[in-house]
Amino acid sequence: MPLILETIVTTLSQEGGVHLVPFGLIREGDDYVLAPFRPSPTILNLDANPCFCASSPRDVRVIAGAVTGRRAWAVVDCDRIRGKRLADSFGHAEFAVAAVEDDPTRPRYRGRMVHSAAHAPFIGYNRAQAAVLEAAILATRLHRLAPDKILAEMRYLAIAISKTAGPREREAWDWIEDKVAAHLGTDARILAAADAA
Amino acid sequence: MPLILETIVTTLSQEGGVHLVPFGLIREGDDYVLAPFRPSPTILNLDANPCFCASSPRDVRVIAGAVTGRRAWAVVDCDRIRGKRLADSFGHAEFAVAAVEDDPTRPRYRGRMVHSAAHAPFIGYNRAQAAVLEAAILATRLHRLAPDKILAEMRYLAIAISKTAGPREREAWDWIEDKVAAHLGTDARILAAADAA
Repeated sequence: MPLILETIVTTLSQEGGVHLVPFGLIREGDDYVLAPFRPSPTILNLDANPCFCASSPRDVRVIAGAVTGRRAWAVVDCDRIRGKRLADSFGHAEFAVAAVEDDPTRPRYRGRMVHSAAHAPFIGYNRAQAAVLEAAILATRLHRLAPDKILAEMRYLAIAISKTAGPREREAWDWIEDKVAAHLGTDARILAAADAA
Repeated sequence: MPLILETIVTTLSQEGGVHLVPFGLIREGDDYVLAPFRPSPTILNLDANPCFCASSPRDVRVIAGAVTGRRAWAVVDCDRIRGKRLADSFGHAEFAVAAVEDDPTRPRYRGRMVHSAAHAPFIGYNRAQAAVLEAAILATRLHRLAPDKILAEMRYLAIAISKTAGPREREAWDWIEDKVAAHLGTDARILAAADAA
């Protein structure tokens, strides 16, 4: 299996509206493949304006926000493509669509990197940021998972939040925990339990 | 609890020997605290040469290697301190020790950042890199954990490896899995099972 990078992908509609959504980009040689499931605003945008930008958020509330209905994050113009990038990022890359494999379920857009830039030094990994990312993915799959499994994963991930999160990671976690609790119909405080352990 | 960044910390001995080890740096305001447990070559080095460098490895084999006896990674000179940084990093930061809280178990060195730089754009998070980091931490705690708990965590982490790792992340995982298997006295192939699932 190839490496997959979890990024914030931005595309532009024909009218110039920005669509911002987390996507896993699949590395294939020097290219990165974007493969959205139909239907998707990203597909409409790529068909109208065949390029996209991938940014790494410094603030993982961007990731948690995408799965809990909060998408109003600042963007700025890209350098080489008609597009926007996340303003507060460690770095970003700009891609032109070099090939499309059409598919009724999941078309694949092969992105050729035409530019990349660093905006802030990434000096270390944060376990809480990774836990927020895992919880965000879990939060998109709640209807396919048993409540016990959801709770077990959230309890495991909450340990890294309790031990290594800063305020922004805690807020991101809280948004996801609220969504999970609403789905499960409980007011279980998963992180509070990890903090108390 | 404050944010903790998992970095590769490098210190120099009086004679100029490089010591390279993964450390979680604790953010306190604008500073980052390094708190090694005694005894530690890092403590001897910091007392002789009170500065340190933190780098983020692009290649997580550096992290897996540190817990499995592989530490020969390329370093280059720092810009502002007497020190070395990891050559292949997304970015690094250089710290001067601004204060020391001595302690018989775990002294705390408060690092003031005097310089930081980006070396490669960090354009996205990789779940497999995060899983390697978690597995590496687990691998330092094997003697304190029940075999069932170790296997359950490794099986969970192997899912992200199976789905999102590139070749370097797989090799890093294999080093750790070998160590875990040797500890447990088993030849259980945890990743192979995840790949087959």
